[in-house]
Amino acid sequence: MRILGIDPGLATVGWGVIDVINGKPKAVAYGVILTPKEKKLPERLLIIEEDLKTLIAKFNPDEIALEELFFNNNATTAINVSHARGVILLTCTKACKSLYEYTPLQIKQALTGYGRAEKKQIQEMTRTFLNLAKIPKPDDAADALAVALTHSQTNRLSSSFAIK
Amino acid sequence: MRILGIDPGLATVGWGVIDVINGKPKAVAYGVILTPKEKKLPERLLIIEEDLKTLIAKFNPDEIALEELFFNNNATTAINVSHARGVILLTCTKACKSLYEYTPLQIKQALTGYGRAEKKQIQEMTRTFLNLAKIPKPDDAADALAVALTHSQTNRLSSSFAIK
Repeated sequence: MRILGIDPGLATVGWGVIDVINGKPKAVAYGVILTPKEKKLPERLLIIEEDLKTLIAKFNPDEIALEELFFNNNATTAINVSHARGVILLTCTKACKSLYEYTPLQIKQALTGYGRAEKKQIQEMTRTFLNLAKIPKPDDAADALAVALTHSQTNRLSSSFAIK
Repeated sequence: MRILGIDPGLATVGWGVIDVINGKPKAVAYGVILTPKEKKLPERLLIIEEDLKTLIAKFNPDEIALEELFFNNNATTAINVSHARGVILLTCTKACKSLYEYTPLQIKQALTGYGRAEKKQIQEMTRTFLNLAKIPKPDDAADALAVALTHSQTNRLSSSFAIK
């Protein structure tokens, strides 16, 4: 089974593709979609849609897992990320009928068994699970792989987090 | 010139189409796109995209004017509306290259000349400008017509609010 994990954002959308074969996850590819800050919001949303469509067409995932928004105190950031996340949800649901969402807490628990794990610990577990020599860079790509791994772990036990 | 005004939302997207002929605005049609609360977010975003595409294809506006988000204290509402607004911006920018945004303050000033006007005053001015017998219902449709009128007024003087 092939899973596309996504860490949503406006300036940077992290993505990571893994294959799960006989229960073992393997990294296929990962990276980031970047949108220039100088461009207007509608143009940045267009870039995200187009690049995401290209990625989904290229890797043809069976299932897509997205990180849920983390609410911080910066309302403007939350609003901007939500604009991008709406476009990401729309694009994914049109391209792939199996769409799942995970909160940061669920990701921490799935990968470390501990809800208060540090970002570094999550990245180290992502590296270990995928048997990689180094922690994937940039951070948003590592986060996206962590979402994909969370889905591969969670999906074996339950599909109760399915949003579709 | 034909203008489509949009009042973005997740549960209710208000829309209003006006024609401006020799500087005089005339209401063509108005209404709301509704998405059921029971449906998951990706499905609601799909409904908004599809209905909006149908509207744009049907009325073929020359320009589209959107209301900017009003920040209230409810972060969850702001996040949900932003998801919808991202999809609305994407859909509009793909269908129409002339997209404009107006803040609630700009709308109040354009229609009443007063930044602290009440909602009822805006609606009454919308009714008067469009020479309608009654205030358009529901409120979201009236708000959308107010955005379209704001654009028709502002556009005569300046296009400095253009986002594209």
